[in-house]
Amino acid sequence: PAEAAPAAKYLAESLTILVIGASGDLAKKLTAPALYQLFTRDYLPKQMTIVGYARSEKSDEELRKAWRPVLLEAHEGEEETIDAFLSKVVYRRGQYDSAEDVAAVFKEQEENEQADGQQVANRLFYFAVPPSVFADIGAAIKEGALSQTGWNRLVVEKPFGKDTESFEELSKTINGLFTPEQTYFVDHYLGKEMNQNLLVLRFANSMFEPLWNRNYIDSVVITFKEDIGTEGRGGYFDSFGIVRDVMQNHLTQMLALIAMDAPVRASGENFGNYVRDEKVKVLHAIKPISIDDCVLGQYTAPDDGSMAGYTEDDTVPDDSVTPTYAALVMHVNNPRWAGVPFVMKAGKALDQKKVEVRIKFKTPVAAECMFPDVRVPTNELVLRVQPNEAVYMKTNVKMPGLAGVPVATELDLSYRTRFDDKMADSPSAYTRLILDCLRGKQASFVRDDELRAAWKIFTPLLHDIDAGKKQPTKYKAFSRGPAEGDEFVSQFYKRDPTYEWHPPAKGDAKM
Amino acid sequence: PAEAAPAAKYLAESLTILVIGASGDLAKKLTAPALYQLFTRDYLPKQMTIVGYARSEKSDEELRKAWRPVLLEAHEGEEETIDAFLSKVVYRRGQYDSAEDVAAVFKEQEENEQADGQQVANRLFYFAVPPSVFADIGAAIKEGALSQTGWNRLVVEKPFGKDTESFEELSKTINGLFTPEQTYFVDHYLGKEMNQNLLVLRFANSMFEPLWNRNYIDSVVITFKEDIGTEGRGGYFDSFGIVRDVMQNHLTQMLALIAMDAPVRASGENFGNYVRDEKVKVLHAIKPISIDDCVLGQYTAPDDGSMAGYTEDDTVPDDSVTPTYAALVMHVNNPRWAGVPFVMKAGKALDQKKVEVRIKFKTPVAAECMFPDVRVPTNELVLRVQPNEAVYMKTNVKMPGLAGVPVATELDLSYRTRFDDKMADSPSAYTRLILDCLRGKQASFVRDDELRAAWKIFTPLLHDIDAGKKQPTKYKAFSRGPAEGDEFVSQFYKRDPTYEWHPPAKGDAKM
Amino acid sequence: PAEAAPAAKYLAESLTILVIGASGDLAKKLTAPALYQLFTRDYLPKQMTIVGYARSEKSDEELRKAWRPVLLEAHEGEEETIDAFLSKVVYRRGQYDSAEDVAAVFKEQEENEQADGQQVANRLFYFAVPPSVFADIGAAIKEGALSQTGWNRLVVEKPFGKDTESFEELSKTINGLFTPEQTYFVDHYLGKEMNQNLLVLRFANSMFEPLWNRNYIDSVVITFKEDIGTEGRGGYFDSFGIVRDVMQNHLTQMLALIAMDAPVRASGENFGNYVRDEKVKVLHAIKPISIDDCVLGQYTAPDDGSMAGYTEDDTVPDDSVTPTYAALVMHVNNPRWAGVPFVMKAGKALDQKKVEVRIKFKTPVAAECMFPDVRVPTNELVLRVQPNEAVYMKTNVKMPGLAGVPVATELDLSYRTRFDDKMADSPSAYTRLILDCLRGKQASFVRDDELRAAWKIFTPLLHDIDAGKKQPTKYKAFSRGPAEGDEFVSQFYKRDPTYEWHPPAKGDAKM
Amino acid sequence: PAEAAPAAKYLAESLTILVIGASGDLAKKLTAPALYQLFTRDYLPKQMTIVGYARSEKSDEELRKAWRPVLLEAHEGEEETIDAFLSKVVYRRGQYDSAEDVAAVFKEQEENEQADGQQVANRLFYFAVPPSVFADIGAAIKEGALSQTGWNRLVVEKPFGKDTESFEELSKTINGLFTPEQTYFVDHYLGKEMNQNLLVLRFANSMFEPLWNRNYIDSVVITFKEDIGTEGRGGYFDSFGIVRDVMQNHLTQMLALIAMDAPVRASGENFGNYVRDEKVKVLHAIKPISIDDCVLGQYTAPDDGSMAGYTEDDTVPDDSVTPTYAALVMHVNNPRWAGVPFVMKAGKALDQKKVEVRIKFKTPVAAECMFPDVRVPTNELVLRVQPNEAVYMKTNVKMPGLAGVPVATELDLSYRTRFDDKMADSPSAYTRLILDCLRGKQASFVRDDELRAAWKIFTPLLHDIDAGKKQPTKYKAFSRGPAEGDEFVSQFYKRDPTYEWHPPAKGDAKM
Repeated sequence: PAEAAPAAKYLAESLTILVIGASGDLAKKLTAPALYQLFTRDYLPKQMTIVGYARSEKSDEELRKAWRPVLLEAHEGEEETIDAFLSKVVYRRGQYDSAEDVAAVFKEQEENEQADGQQVANRLFYFAVPPSVFADIGAAIKEGALSQTGWNRLVVEKPFGKDTESFEELSKTINGLFTPEQTYFVDHYLGKEMNQNLLVLRFANSMFEPLWNRNYIDSVVITFKEDIGTEGRGGYFDSFGIVRDVMQNHLTQMLALIAMDAPVRASGENFGNYVRDEKVKVLHAIKPISIDDCVLGQYTAPDDGSMAGYTEDDTVPDDSVTPTYAALVMHVNNPRWAGVPFVMKAGKALDQKKVEVRIKFKTPVAAECMFPDVRVPTNELVLRVQPNEAVYMKTNVKMPGLAGVPVATELDLSYRTRFDDKMADSPSAYTRLILDCLRGKQASFVRDDELRAAWKIFTPLLHDIDAGKKQPTKYKAFSRGPAEGDEFVSQFYKRDPTYEWHPPAKGDAKM
Repeated sequence: PAEAAPAAKYLAESLTILVIGASGDLAKKLTAPALYQLFTRDYLPKQMTIVGYARSEKSDEELRKAWRPVLLEAHEGEEETIDAFLSKVVYRRGQYDSAEDVAAVFKEQEENEQADGQQVANRLFYFAVPPSVFADIGAAIKEGALSQTGWNRLVVEKPFGKDTESFEELSKTINGLFTPEQTYFVDHYLGKEMNQNLLVLRFANSMFEPLWNRNYIDSVVITFKEDIGTEGRGGYFDSFGIVRDVMQNHLTQMLALIAMDAPVRASGENFGNYVRDEKVKVLHAIKPISIDDCVLGQYTAPDDGSMAGYTEDDTVPDDSVTPTYAALVMHVNNPRWAGVPFVMKAGKALDQKKVEVRIKFKTPVAAECMFPDVRVPTNELVLRVQPNEAVYMKTNVKMPGLAGVPVATELDLSYRTRFDDKMADSPSAYTRLILDCLRGKQASFVRDDELRAAWKIFTPLLHDIDAGKKQPTKYKAFSRGPAEGDEFVSQFYKRDPTYEWHPPAKGDAKM
Repeated sequence: PAEAAPAAKYLAESLTILVIGASGDLAKKLTAPALYQLFTRDYLPKQMTIVGYARSEKSDEELRKAWRPVLLEAHEGEEETIDAFLSKVVYRRGQYDSAEDVAAVFKEQEENEQADGQQVANRLFYFAVPPSVFADIGAAIKEGALSQTGWNRLVVEKPFGKDTESFEELSKTINGLFTPEQTYFVDHYLGKEMNQNLLVLRFANSMFEPLWNRNYIDSVVITFKEDIGTEGRGGYFDSFGIVRDVMQNHLTQMLALIAMDAPVRASGENFGNYVRDEKVKVLHAIKPISIDDCVLGQYTAPDDGSMAGYTEDDTVPDDSVTPTYAALVMHVNNPRWAGVPFVMKAGKALDQKKVEVRIKFKTPVAAECMFPDVRVPTNELVLRVQPNEAVYMKTNVKMPGLAGVPVATELDLSYRTRFDDKMADSPSAYTRLILDCLRGKQASFVRDDELRAAWKIFTPLLHDIDAGKKQPTKYKAFSRGPAEGDEFVSQFYKRDPTYEWHPPAKGDAKM
Repeated sequence: PAEAAPAAKYLAESLTILVIGASGDLAKKLTAPALYQLFTRDYLPKQMTIVGYARSEKSDEELRKAWRPVLLEAHEGEEETIDAFLSKVVYRRGQYDSAEDVAAVFKEQEENEQADGQQVANRLFYFAVPPSVFADIGAAIKEGALSQTGWNRLVVEKPFGKDTESFEELSKTINGLFTPEQTYFVDHYLGKEMNQNLLVLRFANSMFEPLWNRNYIDSVVITFKEDIGTEGRGGYFDSFGIVRDVMQNHLTQMLALIAMDAPVRASGENFGNYVRDEKVKVLHAIKPISIDDCVLGQYTAPDDGSMAGYTEDDTVPDDSVTPTYAALVMHVNNPRWAGVPFVMKAGKALDQKKVEVRIKFKTPVAAECMFPDVRVPTNELVLRVQPNEAVYMKTNVKMPGLAGVPVATELDLSYRTRFDDKMADSPSAYTRLILDCLRGKQASFVRDDELRAAWKIFTPLLHDIDAGKKQPTKYKAFSRGPAEGDEFVSQFYKRDPTYEWHPPAKGDAKM
């Protein structure tokens, strides 16, 4: 692998991973590939077993058969390694509410765990199940499955409730059973390269932090665009809507990383909590969003009929008013950000696929005076999460040549250009996160009080949407979304009409 | 041409360019090609004559013959255009101290100037002669050659004296004859793309100015390296030395553009003087350099004998102690820069050819605390003047992948990558400067009080060097210069051992 | 009273205050007067009883008799009001470890609590007892004395352990019995006018926060000087020493208020926790103090023999090496303060009585250049806690008159001058704190994690002192302390030799 | 005197002061007292003669008799010293356009100048005459009166023209005769204590400069209020109006000192020009004022008839539209000040006599969030020029006591309180200025290019006013001026309704 495997403590200990809900799609499509990537990079200990667990009857081989194609598709030509990996996978059937069933699994595994004289057995419980069974399986684990010699960690997937109230219930359940140190709430956006990079980018460089405040920054825009619709998942989606699906969690997590103050430490002892202390702090500084501070949309079939409209999805009610698009503005009322709008824009079935953050700077002070005869474009720092990670700063220079016209260009760091070899084989967000869980790095996971603070911001808006206080505006699939959305955003963020970014190609010329 | 010719007023008027010293090398190698570039880009008026003037006897055709090869070499395949250009060139013989001779030239030219009913005749006097004849030719022009209907401008080349005293003499001579508005002192470094860009880069972007001070910047290093020796010009060079040859003028001009405060205006009415007011102001804040604040060197033949040592040059005295290398430090004592060393390093016969400015930032505040287990490289903004213009900012990001190691990379703007077409056909510094003179843009020329302020900084050091108070250390040609030089510089600027810049290639992939 | 009584909710409810340890000195000298001040200002509800509780046999009247003289001395001529207050005071005998005894008290009080149809009974338990009985009395209260209709709050006095370990024990005891919302750890320095003012001063003014960082501040010195010795309390003091007695708690609390970042809120909902979050954060950024970073002293009798030396105190062992003086330096490793020394200096039997914070600014940038012929004194912001609260900023102006010499003077806010009427009748720190407890404002109390963080900073040093790794230097009583102390401090803070502050008098001239 | 006389070079040389226009009021009321104050403080050389010069016939004694009462009135009981001073005064009659007359004076004085073997004779020409005779007397002096052994300096009083054109004429006249080094244009506001203090206050303190910009300052208001009318001087005043009389000169000078950037040096070599370079620079950044950016007023008799209305003044035309009041706003378009309004307000016959600058800070960032339940007053730095010099900073603190309400108070430096002895005997502005002229300190005088820049800002407005494009609004004498004025100002500066400054009294209590 590109990097040497770290000499982490857990690697010398034994590990059992219990994938709860092993028959499901999440386990197959996300958990299994992530575990495989760790396996091939030597990030899993030698004494390791993956136990698939679910209610259905299934043999070990059946589970392996179910997982193999997904791995093969992504890793062509690695048949042998895949088989080696799958040989570590077994399947055990059990009820989610049965401490006995769970206990039986570990009774059986104990022998593996102690092989080669291992003294320490770590256990990772991966919850690839809906929240409705969290309480049952959690209680069963607590009663029957905890290791006495090593650590026990739970990896839990969203949704973490639908609003403040339902979250508090979930929180009570989990906190009643496990300590915060044992609980790893996943927001997989925290596993993305760019988000993992944010601490280094912001705090290990001299040039960003002094500018990172209301004196210099005009607005921040966080954009999430998908160029596909619900594609059959409409039923699930319809009970959430775009705000719950990506804004309240993924985009809010990104906002927190962008907006937070410097933590006591960004690496080393206890940094996971220091970082999350700051994320919570900045979320507390945000007022709940008003229904008046947002625009909602819902896509219809495009003119060419190449896709069904949202409500034409068979799994979606005909009269659904669930938004598939939203644009909204948030205000961070603290000394760093007071007065700077944080705009979020997210939608399905839009004109492109893109996730990015734009940090727009104010017009250079007095530029109008110093360059009275010239339009000076504003600077923007763009953090592109996908596709193709890039960091670039829109910068003005004199157009080379004799005319002396200023022109916007960019200081660019395109990951594919610069880190070709690393990116080609880039691990998935899930891979990173499971690795961080194994390493005990909680910074990449969401803490209970973060979730609470995020729900506090969004719950009034969500309740108003649920109560039908604002109808989504229809927009054609594959468009930019409803015109009101662009208008709304333009109150806070003026697009520069003349500028377009061109990514440099990966070059081989060296000096 | 890449840009449309500007509708400048002078283009609609008649123009006579008197190249004084037309037989010389400077005229042939620099003035003529620059005029040709302006000609091909339509930056010269239709009613235009270039009059070569010198003491030797020569026909028009002989001058054209002398100039043609230089133009052809640089512009292969443009024979026809070159001939069209040369057809505008005539030669007139005269004494430099004869007002009559000069008057005769313009008597003759008047007819051309008034062709097509032209009312306004502009005259540009290009001094491609040594300063010893400035007084004579200046007086002759003043007496016999000034246009009464248009402007009269003098383009004067360095050297502008050898120290404060000799400069004052020159200044008195020229100021006695012409106004500051008529006088264009050339420092051709001001014509270089990067230097012309500095006003825009610094003041038309929001992100540099707030960082551009002692709170954030650790040191500034201006480097000039040539990989050739004196190559026969040693005689001339020996009476100047490296400090006078490039530091007191070119590098000091760059320093002033880097260090100066924001001018009242950076374009528009009177901006040339506003800019130069600031350059003068910052030079006044610099204390004269002490001989103790510098290291001197002189190159010897390399081990492989591929070049003669400096004193082995036939035109150089065997016992010459003229420095061919110098490193020195300057202190700008004002609220912006107090405590920040400005280091200059210049030399001939070094390991590479390079001119660049490095602006090194301080370690991100408290990075040692926030990243206690990690070495955080410092940021650097690099302005590369040659070869291959580039602006890049050394920036830290997390190494992509699972290991989480921080790594220095760069936000990069390489001109050749970004502005391929513009740069391929890039005009020379002289071309820009003559054009700026025609346009009356004095910002690119040095003002009398700037020259005075620069000499004030360097004169004590130069007098000490001339008096032999410090002997240059010998260094092998094609090396990095004397070890003392690197040691000296390292007091103020610590090189990052692990980092190396890779310019991106010009790519054609677009999104 | 000067201010209208606030319409706080608790005022309309009933209140029982249980003063545990009512026979002791603390109860008599601090608790009783504070309660009296609240009583006279109408900050106690109408339905209110103060129950003195201790192990000794005593009648109500005996307790009143014990308390009356202290009140009379401070409030001459208020006999009637004092009697009205004391009529609210009763005494009940009981064991500290007896839930029954405590329960009996409240069984009896219930009737009072419900008088006039009161529905809500609040109970404040004031621990005026040594920590050794905290566990017992706490358990007894928990079992037998909690109100079911209103709040229950514990006011607990220092010492909170002697080091990290002993604190953790105490913390475990209290947290095992009561929630953080119920527990009010007192550091009475948080009740002092100047410290209560710090949030407003720092964050409700535009001019301090931008300067409040390493770019502008050179050092911070916190000084605590007493002009008396142990005066018979030597026995108690000897087991603590000056570091534990005032530095680890009082001065560290002041440091935290000075150094912390802006909280989410400084008033309003949950601000008590927001403020303490920031105090904890900044304490986490401080490295444990090394024994090498301090100077210790112990006073001897002065030359005139007017006082006994420390070890001559009968209650102090002859060979005691307990420090009565210490000077030490702390480093706050965060982006705001990295590189700025925080100096603490505290001692008994020194030349004056004074508690103050000095925030010394850096020399005005480049002042040496702009005023080359002049010594420019540095600015200092002084926050005087006692005697006589004052805020003043040492500021340079031109000496009025013709000579043009600069001179240090001050922008001054002396509380007695400005707020004469308010200050004359100023409430004690304890009064404020008990009131804040009644109001539920926890910001003025220390949180569990704050205490932990403070102990973490001091414990290694304290253990080294306890282990005798550094002997205190003797100093004469009523001197400035050991010369080493002044030398040590002068490494970080240079005293301005020429300047002296003169407080303005309270004037009656108005414009 | 309070300060020791400086050992200035001129004190050891001889000095002749020619007071041109000695019979006039200016000479008697301002020049003579200023010279007397220098005399009593030993700031005049021993070899010194004051020669009164005018066209009328008069004996030495007659001039002394004219000057004596003014001196006596201000310096009761100093008869003897006054006589000693007057013994140095002589009177000589002559025409203003006669070089011979002037030459004769100095022919006669030469003997005095060379008494005691003096080698160096300095001459100060004080122009207490209207500008109409500047050209004549200037030429006469140049031809006949210049010292060959010492310096020659001209002190010239306003008015310096009425607009750009008339100023250029004056400038041409004076520059044609004397060098800038010889010319001292007086704006007596530059001699006032507070203005002389501004360089020290701004640049010798750490705390002002970082705040002194658009990020922190909301607005600047410069106020000039007189509580008297034209009082018989109406005829003169009517041809100028309030804008020319105090705004274009005095208030603009104050604005320049407040708004300018840091000069290369604020004391020492050449600082006078460095300071004026910055004043010119900031004036260049101000756009000419539009007639729409001002409000004009003219006073009428008050209701009680205690004063005549402006047009009722016999020397004023009945239909005069000359403003006696104006409020206007200026914009300084540079990186420091872009967006910050500079408001000027000036008037005669207003409710009080006051000259002051108010620098209003922005609301503490996010104060609304941090103190959500509280109105936080803004900070203001007030520089009071008269009456009674003071510098004070409106600062918020917690109201002492239990209520915790924030309250605006001030950090105060009242000169009379702090510098009682100095201020009682404070020299007049003219005294300072003549002394500065003797010392060659040009910083306190206005430079040619400053005057030009100031006229450029005001000329369009003045021409519009002269052309009657805006009629002044009538206001009652002794009121606050026209209501439109307050409304206009309130667009840029909101007065804090609750706050009032109370100057502390001079106290004798010391600690």
